[in-house]
Amino acid sequence: MALSSPGKAEAEIRAIMARRVAAVRAKDAAELVGHHAASVVSYDLLLPLRYGGVDAVRQRGEQWFDGYDGPMGYEIQDLQVYADTDVAFCHGLHHVTGTTKAGRKIDMWWRATQGFQRMDGAWRIVHEHGSVPFDMATGKVSFNLEP
Amino acid sequence: MALSSPGKAEAEIRAIMARRVAAVRAKDAAELVGHHAASVVSYDLLLPLRYGGVDAVRQRGEQWFDGYDGPMGYEIQDLQVYADTDVAFCHGLHHVTGTTKAGRKIDMWWRATQGFQRMDGAWRIVHEHGSVPFDMATGKVSFNLEP
Repeated sequence: MALSSPGKAEAEIRAIMARRVAAVRAKDAAELVGHHAASVVSYDLLLPLRYGGVDAVRQRGEQWFDGYDGPMGYEIQDLQVYADTDVAFCHGLHHVTGTTKAGRKIDMWWRATQGFQRMDGAWRIVHEHGSVPFDMATGKVSFNLEP
Repeated sequence: MALSSPGKAEAEIRAIMARRVAAVRAKDAAELVGHHAASVVSYDLLLPLRYGGVDAVRQRGEQWFDGYDGPMGYEIQDLQVYADTDVAFCHGLHHVTGTTKAGRKIDMWWRATQGFQRMDGAWRIVHEHGSVPFDMATGKVSFNLEP
């Protein structure tokens, strides 16, 4: 017998992503990585090419939150979830708003994909991929994309 | 009973990714999308934010191959596969080499994640995410990253 029905697994993944949204809005880096595997492999928006480990992801989260002055708005749009018994992934469009400590207004969309594995009964994010596409003519990413 | 053991599913995903490598080396866009779902959602290296459908992915592949003069080298390094019975994903570092029709030498690494769903017994790529990270100071992606 499967540990959970596909519908239940999808609901569990959606709940984890909802907690991610709440963690960003609370600027809480520990909560941001509350469902990551220790060995997570992250392909982040920013350099380098990849990095590994939950501590690095948490530190990156802290830097991200520290860059904002006051509250951060955060939402995920068009979240699609594919979940089996022990492996799942999801993808969606992430949107952050706020003002940086340098006084820059941020209203930015990007794409993100999360990969999950059930470990000791609990879903863990084992892989994360966030990015902004670039323009071949300039080599620059675009910060004013909208879905 | 599961349709296939996890080991068998992983081998099937690795075989599909090996066929992807062969398709790029052959500059064969039809073969490149030979295992995509009709409704695939693609987050590509280049703008826009996302696009959908196997025809768009094939056309993007044709443009990519047409940009090269002569042979393309292609490999995937550090491919990690997570496969259950009907849902799987993989991630790895992709490397292309060659010379563009404009005479530019390309030797470029990027990150890619593929999401799979078993449909009518066959694995299909339902989601694809490829990207190059950028430098916050310049807003530019880096074309000379190495693993």
